[in-house]
Amino acid sequence: MPKTLGKDSSCSIARALDALGDAWTILIIREALVSGATRFQEFQDALGIAPNVLAKRLAALVESRVMTRRAYRDAGVRSREEYILTEAGRGLSIVVAALSSWARTYRPSEEGTSPRFLTAAGSAPAQLAFIDERGSIVPPEDLVAVRTPDRERA
Amino acid sequence: MPKTLGKDSSCSIARALDALGDAWTILIIREALVSGATRFQEFQDALGIAPNVLAKRLAALVESRVMTRRAYRDAGVRSREEYILTEAGRGLSIVVAALSSWARTYRPSEEGTSPRFLTAAGSAPAQLAFIDERGSIVPPEDLVAVRTPDRERA
Repeated sequence: MPKTLGKDSSCSIARALDALGDAWTILIIREALVSGATRFQEFQDALGIAPNVLAKRLAALVESRVMTRRAYRDAGVRSREEYILTEAGRGLSIVVAALSSWARTYRPSEEGTSPRFLTAAGSAPAQLAFIDERGSIVPPEDLVAVRTPDRERA
Repeated sequence: MPKTLGKDSSCSIARALDALGDAWTILIIREALVSGATRFQEFQDALGIAPNVLAKRLAALVESRVMTRRAYRDAGVRSREEYILTEAGRGLSIVVAALSSWARTYRPSEEGTSPRFLTAAGSAPAQLAFIDERGSIVPPEDLVAVRTPDRERA
């Protein structure tokens, strides 16, 4: 894994970017989350990514424990490995949803598609939003940010 | 701006990544949002980023309308330009908050820091979360995603 970017290795955002690396990585995670892709060929077909780039990104995702390898075997061929999201990998749905929410607002497209999130239990729709203490939704543009030690958070 | 990564240019996540490009870009936006940085030297001091890389990333952020340039002049020196987040730039607080939320959960650090978001009006804390239709918070790991055309969304 590369050294944390920027001077400040205490920053949680820098820690996240260490695991996510680049744009292809997010699209690989999108395919795993949204299309349920697990096999090398599925990622390659869906993304049109060069095989050597895909192999490197998948290996980095395994190293950073966002994915794990699992053996599978189709009839008549040798055993292969597929790539399964870990709990940390499934937790990246918040990042995928945030990117998608921003692009729907500021990069709208007539033909656009986005993941829609449903609760695994009841299939009820869930949306990503900033909420204040009363549970009311606050638009992202209306917020200011201050730096806070993680241990001071609830 | 580079061509949309991946085969699927309709995807809102791919459109967001076109504007955000790489990890440095997110850290530049973090500095602008959290520390209020606007000047080249402020970004450079805070991030320890090479000047040529910083200049390229800031130019790309202006081109993608996430930042705008504004002239300023300190006493006794020639006029310079600073970089101000646009509304789309301030809207990226949702992406910064999502990265930070994921890292606090899956990459915890004793010495960690994160942005905390406050409503600009009342300084009340706001948190980013998935909420279901009744407004209850749902953990990101408990969600499944399905691909949906943007125009079908509320």
